[in-house]
Amino acid sequence: VDFGALDLVFLALPHGLSQAIVKDLPRSVKVVDLGADFRLRDPAMYEKWYGQPHQAPELQPEAVYGLTEFYRDAIRDARLVAGTGCNAATVQFALRPLIGSGLIDLDDILADLKNGISGAGRSLKENMLFTERSTDVAGYAQGGKHRHLGEFDQEFSLLAGRPVQIQFTPHLVPVNRGILASVYVKGDAGAIHAALQAAYAGEPFLQVLPFGQLPAVAHVTGSNFCHLGVTGDRINGRTLIVSTLDNLNKGSSGQALQNANLMLGLPETQGLMGAPVFP
Amino acid sequence: VDFGALDLVFLALPHGLSQAIVKDLPRSVKVVDLGADFRLRDPAMYEKWYGQPHQAPELQPEAVYGLTEFYRDAIRDARLVAGTGCNAATVQFALRPLIGSGLIDLDDILADLKNGISGAGRSLKENMLFTERSTDVAGYAQGGKHRHLGEFDQEFSLLAGRPVQIQFTPHLVPVNRGILASVYVKGDAGAIHAALQAAYAGEPFLQVLPFGQLPAVAHVTGSNFCHLGVTGDRINGRTLIVSTLDNLNKGSSGQALQNANLMLGLPETQGLMGAPVFP
Amino acid sequence: VDFGALDLVFLALPHGLSQAIVKDLPRSVKVVDLGADFRLRDPAMYEKWYGQPHQAPELQPEAVYGLTEFYRDAIRDARLVAGTGCNAATVQFALRPLIGSGLIDLDDILADLKNGISGAGRSLKENMLFTERSTDVAGYAQGGKHRHLGEFDQEFSLLAGRPVQIQFTPHLVPVNRGILASVYVKGDAGAIHAALQAAYAGEPFLQVLPFGQLPAVAHVTGSNFCHLGVTGDRINGRTLIVSTLDNLNKGSSGQALQNANLMLGLPETQGLMGAPVFP
Amino acid sequence: VDFGALDLVFLALPHGLSQAIVKDLPRSVKVVDLGADFRLRDPAMYEKWYGQPHQAPELQPEAVYGLTEFYRDAIRDARLVAGTGCNAATVQFALRPLIGSGLIDLDDILADLKNGISGAGRSLKENMLFTERSTDVAGYAQGGKHRHLGEFDQEFSLLAGRPVQIQFTPHLVPVNRGILASVYVKGDAGAIHAALQAAYAGEPFLQVLPFGQLPAVAHVTGSNFCHLGVTGDRINGRTLIVSTLDNLNKGSSGQALQNANLMLGLPETQGLMGAPVFP
Repeated sequence: VDFGALDLVFLALPHGLSQAIVKDLPRSVKVVDLGADFRLRDPAMYEKWYGQPHQAPELQPEAVYGLTEFYRDAIRDARLVAGTGCNAATVQFALRPLIGSGLIDLDDILADLKNGISGAGRSLKENMLFTERSTDVAGYAQGGKHRHLGEFDQEFSLLAGRPVQIQFTPHLVPVNRGILASVYVKGDAGAIHAALQAAYAGEPFLQVLPFGQLPAVAHVTGSNFCHLGVTGDRINGRTLIVSTLDNLNKGSSGQALQNANLMLGLPETQGLMGAPVFP
Repeated sequence: VDFGALDLVFLALPHGLSQAIVKDLPRSVKVVDLGADFRLRDPAMYEKWYGQPHQAPELQPEAVYGLTEFYRDAIRDARLVAGTGCNAATVQFALRPLIGSGLIDLDDILADLKNGISGAGRSLKENMLFTERSTDVAGYAQGGKHRHLGEFDQEFSLLAGRPVQIQFTPHLVPVNRGILASVYVKGDAGAIHAALQAAYAGEPFLQVLPFGQLPAVAHVTGSNFCHLGVTGDRINGRTLIVSTLDNLNKGSSGQALQNANLMLGLPETQGLMGAPVFP
Repeated sequence: VDFGALDLVFLALPHGLSQAIVKDLPRSVKVVDLGADFRLRDPAMYEKWYGQPHQAPELQPEAVYGLTEFYRDAIRDARLVAGTGCNAATVQFALRPLIGSGLIDLDDILADLKNGISGAGRSLKENMLFTERSTDVAGYAQGGKHRHLGEFDQEFSLLAGRPVQIQFTPHLVPVNRGILASVYVKGDAGAIHAALQAAYAGEPFLQVLPFGQLPAVAHVTGSNFCHLGVTGDRINGRTLIVSTLDNLNKGSSGQALQNANLMLGLPETQGLMGAPVFP
Repeated sequence: VDFGALDLVFLALPHGLSQAIVKDLPRSVKVVDLGADFRLRDPAMYEKWYGQPHQAPELQPEAVYGLTEFYRDAIRDARLVAGTGCNAATVQFALRPLIGSGLIDLDDILADLKNGISGAGRSLKENMLFTERSTDVAGYAQGGKHRHLGEFDQEFSLLAGRPVQIQFTPHLVPVNRGILASVYVKGDAGAIHAALQAAYAGEPFLQVLPFGQLPAVAHVTGSNFCHLGVTGDRINGRTLIVSTLDNLNKGSSGQALQNANLMLGLPETQGLMGAPVFP
């Protein structure tokens, strides 16, 4: 391949492989990396969560975190965009407008996720077989071990101006696509709903449902949309935010295309406005 | 049917029908009710959660709450046993030994459940169709509206000696059987694990896994077992307890049989020691 | 609704309702009916398979059978097009080019179908519940009772110039979308494959795989494509033709749109070239 | 392991491994082999279907074919019993009583099977992943290539006293357990039904439904039962026989236990009368 002739490449590689490749690509080629190599800006954090030193630390500061709605301007001018984790995207859409708002208790945030199986890709592991997964429900990486926590720590601490750590438990449920995040916070439900509505008012892909209505995975499967809902609880001051998206669209390749559109000066929503597929 | 000739009847009726029937049965017939009619002892609480006055309030005080491991002696002597809700059983197994122990913060308990579809029985509702459920994941009765909260309030407040309210969100996931409860508490994970192990040491159906191991629905599907696991979090003082059981066995009919065994003087585990079915 | 102002209407109604409506619509409105009311041209055949006399028999001769690839010219000029049954479409794509060809034994044709559950729509029947279907496989309308046999009889007899009857058994399998028809015929596999390839050489939606390769439902799910494959058998003269399509696309609404495109003078493939959705 | 101290061993090994092991076991140990190594009595046939010479051809004549209901006496006295293929069992229950009866055309038998995924065991193949199988339906080994054809050829030819070959196409459908065989024959449906009823009149595990009723996988899942049904067709002389069993029970390990019971002089049904699991 004559990479020099290309405007932009998508890299969808096992974690760890992009960092070696990107540094050898011509500077004229824009890169959207769908893997984890450039999500964390701090080499120490990368090594902590991925278990090895980064091979291109000089490129880490240059990479733009690919959560389009919050890094749109930087992405437009970026040479290298790091696609976010699919869990990381789902939860951040629920929380980012709230982190610096004073509306929620930053020390008591809990995200419980229900994840479709395609998040694991096509890796040949026994626990990914049809017979193992089709009638099972189970958590994994519980207790603060999942790598996407590195992204939460980086982004939420940056927004808050001080260290923020959340609790995060993903679960595997037998659907192919989709993530449903139940995010539990302490704060006023009405104010939280209003803050999300205001934050996403003009966004083509982020839909905040009317107060008290909560979305389901089937509302977004096959599309690039993320649906959000907010409700209070019978216990005062407790709020549930539900965020759902299709991990293979808005959670990875849809996001990548959205970012590539920006980087190439195309309309941001081009090729991405397809309706969900049901059933 | 000549009910007077029977030792014991199981009632598996839509909510509200048992109360009218039980009061007309001969006193010599023991009753295991699998419905919700006698789970709450307080007529006001029944009316609050079920939307209508109880038709046999004089029988409510007599009914024994059917969570076998905690009401075993009373069940043995009972005439009327009220089977618990399936969600209510799953979460109580995770929490009861902790409520009066001082080990956890009683004002900050959160249970996020993933429920198989058979919990809804065979009711003909559009959202129970294969095409609606097979690729969807969604919560329901969020924000403190689910009827099983009445059972939690009654039991936990009784144990604590003061009002206790928990947060509780059930979700539908596309498996037929099984409930996985992720119960988040504040307290020391090691002490919590030790307390559960001690509480269930001699129990034939309640299995506490080694510290840090967490169970999956497939470990119990088709059996009368409930598996429990405990892990800490990277955030100090946060603990995740996972409890899982088969809603059609330990969550309803297995429990009913276990109670009937006790009421009839049979071995408690008779007919109930079958292994899980996998896959 | 001012129907007179419309160019074309789609009717997706329970069987039996279209016939009453169409006769009252202004003649200027073109109609694509997705139901069964106008699939059979012979009032006696309609009554035989649907159990009641047709209410608009004067319109039956006018209706064009909506299997686009075989009625293209008539559809272009039609006022009323009758969408085919989804099973009927799947099997006809496998057999139509062979019926008048002399290549197969017309008295020994057998189609065994595996059907996704969405074929039943959203009707509230107990056997359509998730818990009933998710772990079951079962045939239905076996032995020559399924209504789509009326379409086979009409079309194949017309093509052959003499009565032709096939065996046809549909089965429900727990997927939402898709029909896989295993069509067993007697004739030379190579010649049959060549005939299908020749017949569909220029067709945008009908893809004949190389000889010996057989398609799967996942190859077409979510798209308007129909994939076909042919293989021989170790027993000489026996041939298996596999035809698969998405019953909600090429089997009904995709076909309807394809026909509407023709009726309105639009490009036939407009809005229909989307790739399959996987997984 | 001191094999000499054992009465009986079950061998559940990848194909090819049992033959080397059995010849080294003490003659006093009875063997039930769940694999394919001793299903075929003819070394040439073994090599044809399994692609390599048999390593213990001297043991092949001794092995008894493990289809209990038809080899019961020989199994009782056997030292080595070869468990049948799961497809082979399902289809043979539909056909064996008919092969020598003159009731059906032996040269025109077709079996179309719908198979649960557990038939493939836990092998790590991409096409066994949840994401590949959960929304797909596809045939495999079509056209007379499946190894179980060796068993059909051996058994049906023996029964008929002349070579008999059938057509056989298995398909994968997304359930864990169960095989549904739709077996198409030419012969009188009433006579065929009567022959099956007579043949299985006293059999504890083989249930022939009333004429015209056809079974479903869910009727047998989790049990050792095989259900059979027969119906005619609108075309005279065509008959559909449906046979269904749980491949992990009656199709393999249930059959193995049934045979071991016989070999050890225990009641044949011991441990095997459990009801199906639903849902």
